[in-house]
Amino acid sequence: MASNSFGNIFRITTWGESHGPAVGVVIDGCPSNISINEDEINRELARRAPGVSGLVSPRKEPDKVEILSGVFEGKTTGAPISLLIRNIDSKPSAYEPMKDLFRPGHAGFSYLKKYGIFDYQGGGRASARETACRVAAGAIASKVLSQFDIQIGAYLAALGSHTCLFEGSVEQLRKAQTKSAIFCPDISVEAQMTETITKLISDGDSIGGQVVCLVDNVPIGLGDPIYEKLEARLAFAMLSLPASKAFEIGEGVRACAMRGSEHNDLYEATEGVTKPSSNHAGGVLAGISTGEQLNFKVTLKPASSIRKTQKTTTLKGAPVEFSLPEGSRHDPCVAIRAVPVVEAMTALVLVDALMNSRQLIPSCGSVARTH
Amino acid sequence: MASNSFGNIFRITTWGESHGPAVGVVIDGCPSNISINEDEINRELARRAPGVSGLVSPRKEPDKVEILSGVFEGKTTGAPISLLIRNIDSKPSAYEPMKDLFRPGHAGFSYLKKYGIFDYQGGGRASARETACRVAAGAIASKVLSQFDIQIGAYLAALGSHTCLFEGSVEQLRKAQTKSAIFCPDISVEAQMTETITKLISDGDSIGGQVVCLVDNVPIGLGDPIYEKLEARLAFAMLSLPASKAFEIGEGVRACAMRGSEHNDLYEATEGVTKPSSNHAGGVLAGISTGEQLNFKVTLKPASSIRKTQKTTTLKGAPVEFSLPEGSRHDPCVAIRAVPVVEAMTALVLVDALMNSRQLIPSCGSVARTH
Amino acid sequence: MASNSFGNIFRITTWGESHGPAVGVVIDGCPSNISINEDEINRELARRAPGVSGLVSPRKEPDKVEILSGVFEGKTTGAPISLLIRNIDSKPSAYEPMKDLFRPGHAGFSYLKKYGIFDYQGGGRASARETACRVAAGAIASKVLSQFDIQIGAYLAALGSHTCLFEGSVEQLRKAQTKSAIFCPDISVEAQMTETITKLISDGDSIGGQVVCLVDNVPIGLGDPIYEKLEARLAFAMLSLPASKAFEIGEGVRACAMRGSEHNDLYEATEGVTKPSSNHAGGVLAGISTGEQLNFKVTLKPASSIRKTQKTTTLKGAPVEFSLPEGSRHDPCVAIRAVPVVEAMTALVLVDALMNSRQLIPSCGSVARTH
Amino acid sequence: MASNSFGNIFRITTWGESHGPAVGVVIDGCPSNISINEDEINRELARRAPGVSGLVSPRKEPDKVEILSGVFEGKTTGAPISLLIRNIDSKPSAYEPMKDLFRPGHAGFSYLKKYGIFDYQGGGRASARETACRVAAGAIASKVLSQFDIQIGAYLAALGSHTCLFEGSVEQLRKAQTKSAIFCPDISVEAQMTETITKLISDGDSIGGQVVCLVDNVPIGLGDPIYEKLEARLAFAMLSLPASKAFEIGEGVRACAMRGSEHNDLYEATEGVTKPSSNHAGGVLAGISTGEQLNFKVTLKPASSIRKTQKTTTLKGAPVEFSLPEGSRHDPCVAIRAVPVVEAMTALVLVDALMNSRQLIPSCGSVARTH
Repeated sequence: MASNSFGNIFRITTWGESHGPAVGVVIDGCPSNISINEDEINRELARRAPGVSGLVSPRKEPDKVEILSGVFEGKTTGAPISLLIRNIDSKPSAYEPMKDLFRPGHAGFSYLKKYGIFDYQGGGRASARETACRVAAGAIASKVLSQFDIQIGAYLAALGSHTCLFEGSVEQLRKAQTKSAIFCPDISVEAQMTETITKLISDGDSIGGQVVCLVDNVPIGLGDPIYEKLEARLAFAMLSLPASKAFEIGEGVRACAMRGSEHNDLYEATEGVTKPSSNHAGGVLAGISTGEQLNFKVTLKPASSIRKTQKTTTLKGAPVEFSLPEGSRHDPCVAIRAVPVVEAMTALVLVDALMNSRQLIPSCGSVARTH
Repeated sequence: MASNSFGNIFRITTWGESHGPAVGVVIDGCPSNISINEDEINRELARRAPGVSGLVSPRKEPDKVEILSGVFEGKTTGAPISLLIRNIDSKPSAYEPMKDLFRPGHAGFSYLKKYGIFDYQGGGRASARETACRVAAGAIASKVLSQFDIQIGAYLAALGSHTCLFEGSVEQLRKAQTKSAIFCPDISVEAQMTETITKLISDGDSIGGQVVCLVDNVPIGLGDPIYEKLEARLAFAMLSLPASKAFEIGEGVRACAMRGSEHNDLYEATEGVTKPSSNHAGGVLAGISTGEQLNFKVTLKPASSIRKTQKTTTLKGAPVEFSLPEGSRHDPCVAIRAVPVVEAMTALVLVDALMNSRQLIPSCGSVARTH
Repeated sequence: MASNSFGNIFRITTWGESHGPAVGVVIDGCPSNISINEDEINRELARRAPGVSGLVSPRKEPDKVEILSGVFEGKTTGAPISLLIRNIDSKPSAYEPMKDLFRPGHAGFSYLKKYGIFDYQGGGRASARETACRVAAGAIASKVLSQFDIQIGAYLAALGSHTCLFEGSVEQLRKAQTKSAIFCPDISVEAQMTETITKLISDGDSIGGQVVCLVDNVPIGLGDPIYEKLEARLAFAMLSLPASKAFEIGEGVRACAMRGSEHNDLYEATEGVTKPSSNHAGGVLAGISTGEQLNFKVTLKPASSIRKTQKTTTLKGAPVEFSLPEGSRHDPCVAIRAVPVVEAMTALVLVDALMNSRQLIPSCGSVARTH
Repeated sequence: MASNSFGNIFRITTWGESHGPAVGVVIDGCPSNISINEDEINRELARRAPGVSGLVSPRKEPDKVEILSGVFEGKTTGAPISLLIRNIDSKPSAYEPMKDLFRPGHAGFSYLKKYGIFDYQGGGRASARETACRVAAGAIASKVLSQFDIQIGAYLAALGSHTCLFEGSVEQLRKAQTKSAIFCPDISVEAQMTETITKLISDGDSIGGQVVCLVDNVPIGLGDPIYEKLEARLAFAMLSLPASKAFEIGEGVRACAMRGSEHNDLYEATEGVTKPSSNHAGGVLAGISTGEQLNFKVTLKPASSIRKTQKTTTLKGAPVEFSLPEGSRHDPCVAIRAVPVVEAMTALVLVDALMNSRQLIPSCGSVARTH
């Protein structure tokens, strides 16, 4: 099945393997007359890039995007936008030793059973390298959203047992994150996280984490009943991320232990305008945005690639022990690099919901139409 | 946007309001030559029906399905199957007192803002009544899945702070649930849950809950990279349920605190056939089923409809106090009735994935094709 | 595959067999706050109904629609609209004699090969009875289009060798058709057509025909490059009609013999506003509406059901002669009854294109949003 | 709307402007384990390329495809296949003189109205250059179809008033075309066509044409009722071609003047196997393939780009005369180069239908699955 596309009205299609010549994304359905340049996209790619902090994978990927179509004299034309990012620092040969075995936690097993063939080099299509394309597309989606002043911000809310809760606006979140190399808005928690990461690197092990995403200025009315609920679209987007194992909106799993009288957001009015007086729901009601801050959490499993020795089998079923070579480059906690990817997917969900809801929400009627 | 459909190859479209003449579902893409009759569907509807145990809403809905099309001489023809369920026990007048105010936690606020009109009778389209259609369609999906011996079973895993963990096959689960009025496989936990429910009823309050779903005999290879991952489709399906606030697969949120060396499912081989030796992943790897038991959890918020007095405003923004009349019929814990709905949505996700994957999985090639 | 739906944003799903209890359609994605009542839909159904003129099939189908959902206090709510039309005058027993043979020109052969089962009663799902649902849905689509003053009118442009060309506005067309029982705007041609029909009835034979459709007040900008061109969507819609064999837009097949210097529509400006000075293109350019009158033609084959004796085989391959019983009710020319169906499908294509193009066409921004 | 994709299961997405750095296509949903190399694709591109015969546009486009993803060790992996074709011979400056006026018959008018911006260089996205991507994707689709021995062949059936009718197999057609520079299987007709082309070139004018496409060995059962009929999908595909104005299947417009007793294909049986004894229908019945030769025709308008002087207006509405410079490179008859594009689109429709129908057609169950 065609399954490398995301979105309906504003739809992206990604392609490319980790160790092929390039990865890329085609964005179809972007409104016309949006100003776009490569630098804006590169800035977002840099946030996701490994090697920035010493705390994530040291691979050098100076991701530079090339805009191949859809932009004329600096503005989108309504035609599909093709973005290409070359794979400069790939080392296919590094994967030769693993070609004949199943790497625990990796896609090789299920892909090989499904397709009867597997590009084992760096995980091929299943590599998180693909998320660079999501970030590039998200940068363009964010440009559209910025016309409505919609602000998206995510942060590292947990790394192993270290947790951190931020309450405030996205603008405040960004300020709090400024000094953090790992998207953590709390300096003291970051110190603990960093310590754990350092230990993990020396252990050759990895750990899970959580990302919380907040969105401000969401128009009321995004999302559609009954199946295309906004929270369902977000859950779909977040579980499509590599390593993602859980999605929670609002109180999430905590809602289990709450009573209706606690969880219900009561309404109050100011000058005749009604709005919820609390936000346990996380900004949605019955699948549709309420205008309150969108608030959801994603749990990511510990990275499967570790240096520790693990038992597995060859493709033919012979038992074998396997460990990554000492100098191997991998992330101790993929949740860190997931932060900008969560933001990008959120932007993609919202821009699609926004364009889908255009006819019903008068304030959404004028995007990119100044002529 | 057209958003009342679910699925691609095997696609359902539901319609109907809680207090209109009927609700219904059209199933398009069902394979031909599947034996179907109304009794089979009614049996599944009965599992979801309120009033069965005294512990859920006492409304009487003797849901009886009518098959209006797509079945000829007892077998599906490949044409769309139209199912209709009449709304017999509806009382639109009961909702008159609420027509001019926003009910906390209900769809009225967001629907009215989005559409400029709202059918307030019993929540109209936003009512959980719609899930009867999902269950009816799920019954047909399950008939297709049963040709592959795929077995789906869900249970009430938490009600407030009472929790219950079942490990075993779906067949064993069903046996353990036989005596339970609330789909709980553990008799002693059920007793505690029942006590809490009784108290909630007298308090006029509600509580959250969790449903765990297990699937046995899943073929290896269901689900598609990169976006249409099996876990992403399941998350989408589960977050489309009314009151759903979280989705977890495998270890779910617990994966946050785990190390890669703990979470990775190592491989072992028996007679040359490799399979994972544990199942932290919950039956999927990189979006594709591994053949292990599928295992995921859904958290449902406490029902918004409670008898306790709550503050809210009228549609015009005047403050008002609101409480349901004493004899009102509502669920103290919607997670109970959600159990068969979770099963139904799982069946719909799997039958679609199965038909999508047909060309790649030889063992899926012969469904309903005996001629 | 799910293939009983048409449209993306405004999407219909039809169901039902010719001789089952009912046929129906679910309309998903209709804007809210559109006034709708059953009489308006019934009026359109009456135009398509057989038996009106004595020149088409004498079956009595007093088609009356029931609105089962999606309308509250006379207005659409944004929820799916379920329409049901009962099959009152069905006679399944009439088809017993044909159950074991392949009727020439009918769906039985290809359906049976594809599905391994066939509901032979009146053609089952393949019956033109399904087009009643298209007309009912088209009536609602037209209500939306009427907010933009978009006018659709089709006419019988050919019946066998009798042809008729109408040039003028849709309003003028409707006036010219008033007196015609067969949607022909030219009285003298209609007389010839009627004579031919009378002869065909006595011969027990049928004949082909052509329907031309005109649309006035089409906003500039409907349709999307590269694949979802407006003319491609129209062609898809028209070839989905039973018996349809050709689609032409603008000059159609005549364009083959024309030179570029003849076919090109030159531009001229009035008070600085440029528009084409002719309309060989038929109202589209590169897939997008130009604002000129939309103009296309559909060719329908002669009805397959004839009283004349024809050679065929049984399902098991034995040669057999077959003829419909004397009193059988069938159309001598299906193109007549196709006229309102062509209009309905055009309305469905346009309302979908309109809603798809909302974000780009400022004048389309305010449908059904008066609050 | 996202409208640059074609197909559902086997889906292509094209991108790129005529005078940008490149054009390209992403193919999503291709079965795995199909052997593919760049040479095979380049051969198909060469058939479409201008400059081959002196009778079509003399532009030099040595189209060479680069496979950027989805192929591993010479075989498809199931991952998206990204193909890129650089635009070597583009001359954006040649279009400077036309940037401020509306070219008759070109996309500029409708695109500018729709999007508020237009890449005028060579028609930008609206250029027929995009069809190179269709041909490249079609080459891969054909590789899949060849596993089922499905053969597609199109020919130039009319150029202005010169017509040519071929009856026979696709294999015979290809032989008959071998010596033709314009895909015409009849040597004597080709001579007349060539003479007309030569005259048109000196006149600076263009002419319309028709392409007929035949397909052999189509499995019975492709296509889906009611809307996704095989002929509807083909019509959609063919009307999505630049310059396309009509689609006919089987007898096409001739069916209008036929009687049912002439048009019906009667059945006969050989050794108990029933099949139609004639093929007026063109290989489909009620939307589903019958196993007979698929046979349809496309009419293409004369190219809009001519050297003759034409009246038009500037973008601001001032009248102006316009003619292409003497040395301009354009096609006197676009129907010639459309031949391989029609074949490519047919391959794309059929491979999608084949994969959609997989579960119902046992003989389609084993594509690319030899492991």
